[in-house]
Amino acid sequence: MTKARAGAVMAVGISLLVGALAAPAAAPAGDAGIRAVAAVDPFIGTGGEGHTFPGAVVPFGMVQLSPDTRIQPRKDAYDWAAGYRHDDRSIVGFSHTHFSGTGHSDLGDVLLMPIAGDVRLERGDADKPGSGYTSRFRHDDERAEPGYYAVTLDDYGVRAELTATARVGVHRYTFPQGKPAHVLVDLRTSMYDYPGKVQWSRLRLQPDGTVTGFRETRGWAPGRQLYFAMRFSRPVKGHAFHDTEQDVAYKGFPPPGDKDPAQRAQIEGRQLVGTFDFGDASREPLLVKVSISPVSEAGAIANLDAEVPAWDFDGVRTAAKAQWAQALGAIDIDAPEPMRKSFYTALYHAFMGPSLFMDSDGRYRGPDNAVHQAKGYTHYSTFSLWDTYRALHPLLTLVQPEQRNNDIVNSLLASRRESPYGVLPVWSFHGLETWCMIGYHAVPVIADAYMKGIRGYDADEALEAMVASASYGPYDGVRQYMELGYVPIDEEGEAASKTLEYAFDDWTIARMAAEMGRKDIAATFEKRAANWKHAFDPKTGYMRARKRDGSFREPFDPDASGYGTDYTEGNAWQYSWYVPQDVAGLAQAHGGADSLLARLDEVFDAKVEPSVFEHMEDITGLIGWYAHGNEPSHHVAYLYAYAGQPWRTQARVKQIVDTQYKPTPDGLAGNDDLGQMSAWYVFTVLGFYPVAPGSNEYIIGRPFLPRATLNLPNGKRFTIVADGLDDAHPYIGSATLDGKPLDRAFLRHEEIMAGGELRFTMQAEPNREWGTHPSQQPYSLSRR
Amino acid sequence: MTKARAGAVMAVGISLLVGALAAPAAAPAGDAGIRAVAAVDPFIGTGGEGHTFPGAVVPFGMVQLSPDTRIQPRKDAYDWAAGYRHDDRSIVGFSHTHFSGTGHSDLGDVLLMPIAGDVRLERGDADKPGSGYTSRFRHDDERAEPGYYAVTLDDYGVRAELTATARVGVHRYTFPQGKPAHVLVDLRTSMYDYPGKVQWSRLRLQPDGTVTGFRETRGWAPGRQLYFAMRFSRPVKGHAFHDTEQDVAYKGFPPPGDKDPAQRAQIEGRQLVGTFDFGDASREPLLVKVSISPVSEAGAIANLDAEVPAWDFDGVRTAAKAQWAQALGAIDIDAPEPMRKSFYTALYHAFMGPSLFMDSDGRYRGPDNAVHQAKGYTHYSTFSLWDTYRALHPLLTLVQPEQRNNDIVNSLLASRRESPYGVLPVWSFHGLETWCMIGYHAVPVIADAYMKGIRGYDADEALEAMVASASYGPYDGVRQYMELGYVPIDEEGEAASKTLEYAFDDWTIARMAAEMGRKDIAATFEKRAANWKHAFDPKTGYMRARKRDGSFREPFDPDASGYGTDYTEGNAWQYSWYVPQDVAGLAQAHGGADSLLARLDEVFDAKVEPSVFEHMEDITGLIGWYAHGNEPSHHVAYLYAYAGQPWRTQARVKQIVDTQYKPTPDGLAGNDDLGQMSAWYVFTVLGFYPVAPGSNEYIIGRPFLPRATLNLPNGKRFTIVADGLDDAHPYIGSATLDGKPLDRAFLRHEEIMAGGELRFTMQAEPNREWGTHPSQQPYSLSRR
Repeated sequence: MTKARAGAVMAVGISLLVGALAAPAAAPAGDAGIRAVAAVDPFIGTGGEGHTFPGAVVPFGMVQLSPDTRIQPRKDAYDWAAGYRHDDRSIVGFSHTHFSGTGHSDLGDVLLMPIAGDVRLERGDADKPGSGYTSRFRHDDERAEPGYYAVTLDDYGVRAELTATARVGVHRYTFPQGKPAHVLVDLRTSMYDYPGKVQWSRLRLQPDGTVTGFRETRGWAPGRQLYFAMRFSRPVKGHAFHDTEQDVAYKGFPPPGDKDPAQRAQIEGRQLVGTFDFGDASREPLLVKVSISPVSEAGAIANLDAEVPAWDFDGVRTAAKAQWAQALGAIDIDAPEPMRKSFYTALYHAFMGPSLFMDSDGRYRGPDNAVHQAKGYTHYSTFSLWDTYRALHPLLTLVQPEQRNNDIVNSLLASRRESPYGVLPVWSFHGLETWCMIGYHAVPVIADAYMKGIRGYDADEALEAMVASASYGPYDGVRQYMELGYVPIDEEGEAASKTLEYAFDDWTIARMAAEMGRKDIAATFEKRAANWKHAFDPKTGYMRARKRDGSFREPFDPDASGYGTDYTEGNAWQYSWYVPQDVAGLAQAHGGADSLLARLDEVFDAKVEPSVFEHMEDITGLIGWYAHGNEPSHHVAYLYAYAGQPWRTQARVKQIVDTQYKPTPDGLAGNDDLGQMSAWYVFTVLGFYPVAPGSNEYIIGRPFLPRATLNLPNGKRFTIVADGLDDAHPYIGSATLDGKPLDRAFLRHEEIMAGGELRFTMQAEPNREWGTHPSQQPYSLSRR
Repeated sequence: MTKARAGAVMAVGISLLVGALAAPAAAPAGDAGIRAVAAVDPFIGTGGEGHTFPGAVVPFGMVQLSPDTRIQPRKDAYDWAAGYRHDDRSIVGFSHTHFSGTGHSDLGDVLLMPIAGDVRLERGDADKPGSGYTSRFRHDDERAEPGYYAVTLDDYGVRAELTATARVGVHRYTFPQGKPAHVLVDLRTSMYDYPGKVQWSRLRLQPDGTVTGFRETRGWAPGRQLYFAMRFSRPVKGHAFHDTEQDVAYKGFPPPGDKDPAQRAQIEGRQLVGTFDFGDASREPLLVKVSISPVSEAGAIANLDAEVPAWDFDGVRTAAKAQWAQALGAIDIDAPEPMRKSFYTALYHAFMGPSLFMDSDGRYRGPDNAVHQAKGYTHYSTFSLWDTYRALHPLLTLVQPEQRNNDIVNSLLASRRESPYGVLPVWSFHGLETWCMIGYHAVPVIADAYMKGIRGYDADEALEAMVASASYGPYDGVRQYMELGYVPIDEEGEAASKTLEYAFDDWTIARMAAEMGRKDIAATFEKRAANWKHAFDPKTGYMRARKRDGSFREPFDPDASGYGTDYTEGNAWQYSWYVPQDVAGLAQAHGGADSLLARLDEVFDAKVEPSVFEHMEDITGLIGWYAHGNEPSHHVAYLYAYAGQPWRTQARVKQIVDTQYKPTPDGLAGNDDLGQMSAWYVFTVLGFYPVAPGSNEYIIGRPFLPRATLNLPNGKRFTIVADGLDDAHPYIGSATLDGKPLDRAFLRHEEIMAGGELRFTMQAEPNREWGTHPSQQPYSLSRR
């Protein structure tokens, strides 16, 4: 009995066992979903580098209601990008908007804190208990699950529970006896805090007890307005509105009751905090509903009425859980519990963004900061496209309803119509453009969707928008790129990375244009897709930044990195393999596949001191020079398979999965980046990865799960089975697709969408033949 | 021949002469209007204390396009409240919003400056020519008429002409040869300037050459947003967008082309200035159209398209003039030219506010700073109600279409519905409440309109709004006023003035409630109307501030004044006569009419050093203690007539008219206050004045015009003839109304509205009998 056979027998055993457990798999996806929800641990990524938050959210929800453990000044903001760090021992309050996994930070709007006893108006020093309204907490008292978070605030003895709908956060505060209950609302705090960030804000107590307000912040997004409405489950016995800003040049004439904070029905200013008093509230919990709106206070009230008309915390929680079950049930897996936890938490994190960004009446704010009406679709924002075009959006096309993917494309197109620059979003949130990172990566998102048959939008408009975005001269050296075929480093920073990523994006335009029969556009952009060659230095074998005169910039150090250098969040080691549209060409440039493969080994096997990237926040998760914690590396392990050695990919992805993901708070090796890190994981453990979005191909790595079933948006099921899978049998021996031998290291999108079964037989040793036949190569190789 | 008879003969002669001149009076009002327009001198009030501006505006227009001669820091802002001072010799630029005659300042939005030659981005020092883009000018080159303003900017040799529609300012710049033409747009400047006033702003060059943007300022009105759209009559050859703010904590990621101001299609920030280049523009003038919107940039574009679709400066100018002719034609007077100039300029200034405040689609911003839709009426804002309830609104009921007055009431009611406090406006502009001054004087505006039969609104809602505004406890001591019958000075400043003005406002509620048959409300507020008695100190004969314990505050000095003292912008000498609703009661309190009359003489005849009010900006135009430059005195001269000595009123109003109004830039003795000073003048020279709005009575002073015809909104005409009028015959000898003797010193509103002729025979000496019969007394006396 070879090891491989033993593995096969064991796999059958596991399969049977799992089959018993998985009996409900034949039942509605909801059952798989319910089990999936139970597997999620929202704390994964809240420590270490993940930058996730543990709070309450529904899939793609506009509200992300979560505890903030520190409000950090901007110089220290990086680690608190999501407001919460698992190492912290105190909570400032619960705010309603958070990014999941970003490197830069903002949001943290409308922070609530329940207080029992004396009220302090300042949050105080997190390291000095009692110095402000911040309270200590213990992880023992904490609980987080999809759509629900709970914690006990030790300084007050208050149990705080959070749940959410798409636009409403619902709080349940259980107050202790003997101390008056209060709720504090702080409009001063946010992620990436600095003096003057809040440009204007308002708190208003309406006659019916509804509290409304707004704030406008000058943060990552300029001039961002967010409105809210809040209701309490019991009458407000007293309130006070304070403006804590000192030395204000102009406060204006005082509103009524100005002298007495308790008489102010409204307050406007830049440093506002309000408190609401409820007397003895210990008999039954106090519920607070808070809705947000990008449009107006009236919009927030309408959202509140539409989504949470009643006072039913548990009902909202159950509904949130059901939404997660529906969403997570898209993939039903058999796996050991730790891997189930990692997998479903990754899937959970993949469903955080883009997030809903419109009121219940369809109104939202666009990149022009004006109010628009979404007609016939649901508007989304928070596009971390440099990250998410790689694997997150391809994942959503497989596991989310077609409508969601159409809505995403329609949202991108609407934003482009409303863009002052006439371009698709680059990195936008809450409707506003931040211009963060590089490329025009809304382009591959749309092209990939189009190529996969997702077409519920105006394709002509989409192609026009893609061409316009790829031709907007003032943006990041695009004018020079169009003129020279590369971005010149003496005129534009990060020129090597930009040339490479533009060329890939261009290729996806060519793909879509060709599919649409627009030969002229296809030809133009097919030509541009080859611009990566201008970055390749045959002497050193690296991608490098060229100057306008054609020479490469000297001196050159492939180890060097830094913000604004030749590369974007990386160095030559990480960027030199970014030609997913033409790996054959890349190999050819290196003098053949073997040379390229040797270089890839150099990447992974290099001895690199982690301190080499200490000056760069985003480059983490190192394996040699391979930095799994940041996106430029994400496709690299799959290049072995492209270059004819799929077994090397199989080994490398195991190396990455084993070292870069753990089902613990510090379990993410890098920023989750709105789900890209998680989407990489979901694809990779399923066994394949979309190296070149727009190609309709997935490169097969290797399966990590004994069995996984994709409940596809078209109603079909695609099951991946790994016979004989265990740690000792990590290599693919053979594979069948619907019972027929599959001897290639890639899948076609239509093969998945047709439903069926992909079955691997795993073995202990590499099969150096499987998937290597030259006639069975993915697009970017076979077309040459 | 007595002097009186000679006067009569002369008056006949004048009447004949005037009759010849006035032949067109029988023709359509338009002809009178055209002559009226020619008589207007917009420079009146631009020097001295008037605070008016000379720029281009249409009646009640949203745009007030006018030159700003200095941008003053807030400590020096008072004299530049309207942006322009006639003493100045340089112009910073032309901005699109201005108050007419206020004491406090704000606005000055979207400042344009045409530049020939080199561009400087800073306005420089007005006293140092060439230090910035500010240019010198000479009054010789200036021209101002209703709807039109022109000046030559000497530093550039540019002729600048301005005209306007309701929502659009139109500029015509004639550039010299040989220097490149530019237009600079400064979003940094405003009246009452201080660091940080601009909270956020945007400049955007749209692909079609339209420039749009907005700014949000923290000034007199908090968080005020104003949007604009701008088009040029020729293509923009180049542009540059600059953010001149230094040391910005957070500028965010740069937009495309950030490094090059000429490549920025959009810029956001707090200190923005844009320049637009046109090369040689000397062959024909450059036209610039600028619209404003309270709602959005799209709203501004729609306003631009709706109102000024073509490039026809002269057409817009002609249309503006025609609107003024229509408006000013409401009163057709015969008078010597200087008085015609004063009169029609006063009428012109009376038609500046309230001003239109909605987009062409009916949307506007309310006091909640949210966007609302006006349904079935035209929305107005800029309510300087403490000033204008006295005479301006009563004037508008006589000389403006009923629709305008209904729109004003509907605007007040809409603002109240949208008020975070549930109260009617106090002092609001651009939709926002400033809480400036005291009282709830929207109440008498509505009551006066209702009593005069202007009822195109929901009267029940109106009464409810009035009661709510008069019962809103947190506002300025209203809670204590309702509790004690007066505002206690130990709890609320300016308590004496507040008690008096609340009591008057309350009386108007009682009047309207009684008319509506709401006896309960009428009784409550009739009682409150007597609260003035709590302010009266029988020992000293002054109105004084009482403390909660019932005692008057000591020490007491009737000469003392100051902000936040017992009185509002005044002292005991000015406020002790403010009981227009019960002059009989006031006389009784003084021990009889004679005592009151003696006190009034004390007021006028006191020897007062003007320096006594040097610390108070608003108290000007002194005659003794009588301060015509501020509103609390405006009714005082008419109290003689109430108290049985109309000939004394006749003498006093002549004294005031002769000394307080001149047809010169420094011709207004005090701030015009959105037309209240001017409305006083219009009424007074016509011969009567609405001492107690809500009473439907006008106290007759004396006519100053040989003949005046009111073209009433109901289509009828009411003519006032003063036979024998000249300087030597200033007293009323007798009067007839429609040929029947009129032996009373007041008119009823219905008598005017019925049309007809009020004819006075003037004489040299007072007629001490006319108008004194006890059975013929106005409301507030006769009802006792």
